[in-house]
Amino acid sequence: MTGKVFLIGAGPGDPELLTLRALRMLEAADVVVYDKLVSAEILAMSPPGARMISVGKSPKCHPVTQDRINDILKTEALAGHTVARLKGGDPMIFGRGSEEAAHLMQHGVSVEYAPGITAAQGASCSTGVPLTHRGLATGVQYVTGHRQADKVLDLDWKRLANPNTTLVIYMGVANIGQIAMGLMTENLPGSTPVMAVAKATTPDERRLVSRLDQIAQDVRKAEFVAPVLFIVGQVVSLYAEHPCTEIAPGITQVIAHG
Amino acid sequence: MTGKVFLIGAGPGDPELLTLRALRMLEAADVVVYDKLVSAEILAMSPPGARMISVGKSPKCHPVTQDRINDILKTEALAGHTVARLKGGDPMIFGRGSEEAAHLMQHGVSVEYAPGITAAQGASCSTGVPLTHRGLATGVQYVTGHRQADKVLDLDWKRLANPNTTLVIYMGVANIGQIAMGLMTENLPGSTPVMAVAKATTPDERRLVSRLDQIAQDVRKAEFVAPVLFIVGQVVSLYAEHPCTEIAPGITQVIAHG
Repeated sequence: MTGKVFLIGAGPGDPELLTLRALRMLEAADVVVYDKLVSAEILAMSPPGARMISVGKSPKCHPVTQDRINDILKTEALAGHTVARLKGGDPMIFGRGSEEAAHLMQHGVSVEYAPGITAAQGASCSTGVPLTHRGLATGVQYVTGHRQADKVLDLDWKRLANPNTTLVIYMGVANIGQIAMGLMTENLPGSTPVMAVAKATTPDERRLVSRLDQIAQDVRKAEFVAPVLFIVGQVVSLYAEHPCTEIAPGITQVIAHG
Repeated sequence: MTGKVFLIGAGPGDPELLTLRALRMLEAADVVVYDKLVSAEILAMSPPGARMISVGKSPKCHPVTQDRINDILKTEALAGHTVARLKGGDPMIFGRGSEEAAHLMQHGVSVEYAPGITAAQGASCSTGVPLTHRGLATGVQYVTGHRQADKVLDLDWKRLANPNTTLVIYMGVANIGQIAMGLMTENLPGSTPVMAVAKATTPDERRLVSRLDQIAQDVRKAEFVAPVLFIVGQVVSLYAEHPCTEIAPGITQVIAHG
């Protein structure tokens, strides 16, 4: 009997941000296949006795290739197991969930999804900075600031440099200088507020508020470690206005040029 | 003693898409203030005896103004109650959560957030159509296709008409003809795949796959009723490729021009 694969968004870090469906699926698993960004607290919610398989990827270091991950999922499901595939964030946003699903379905393995809170949403709720806000941002856009080693960062600066929407950059810490320059070249003002959030929603969350023309040096100076998310746009100005947003113990606030 | 307000994302409809935090906050409430889009199943998770206050807004019909909602939240919290403010989707994405929070914090009321699965994520996981996918979409953008009665739909068509990213339009069913025309005028091909999803993740979910130059007439013919979400971009082509995505009982599939 063929098993199945649950493609589960584990959210940005805080175990409380799992959905009820994600928890139900995880609790039903015989085998848990998980990424590096899935926290120990979430892994601890797996059923006792479940086989735990780490396929964690670090930036510039892929110990397990995507092909190998696809193969592990397929093999475990075809052997009759119920597989929980835990991914940080949401499997359908920069998560390659659809690539894994396509591979599995080609081999007759059925797939069910649990969406997850993506890092932008986690950072937004932990900092009180909204992703949209009347008069400040009519929409929001997510892009990645990371490319594979041999690829250039080919972002469409003209379309991204929109003063009326919020731009969220995932995996951009290595390239933030180039990203800020690209946006300013397309006339997004250097004074545009930017917030960097490292390890959003975890006890190690750190925040830094700066502006587009200074974010690269500020983030380097503060030695932020991945995963780092950048929120670019006027919504960030609401952070300083409402400093009474609750800050969890252990969170370091680095406010520069606020 | 002053109470507090939990600003809670109730997700797109399916009660299983609540986060654990949302459920914990809801279960702690004395008073529940909820929008029209929050489902009966989710309201039923409120503590027995909690006072339920509906402040539902329908399109073009605002029985309770935003000012009045702000006032209700403030008054209940200042009276010492723990208030769960339940919103469809995520409070920080088209949810006005930050407006309510600003008002409350000005009056000394503390606010905590629970992010929610937004409709785009719910529709993505229920249809199997990803929001990003290598080679098809390097990012995703959310906009609203709705304006207040006296405002024009002032979307930035040039920046939205990006063939390399996914565009998700919330609240756009009344204006989809104008939206499609605006995108085509800025050279997004009429053949671009579009999926409309009504009432995503609920037992009444309906889907329609079409293309940009025909979506307006198709959606009118199919009589889709709000809330309707449009996913525009090459990722929609994956829907037809993987028709074995599980479809919940009761879901009507209207596939046109697939």
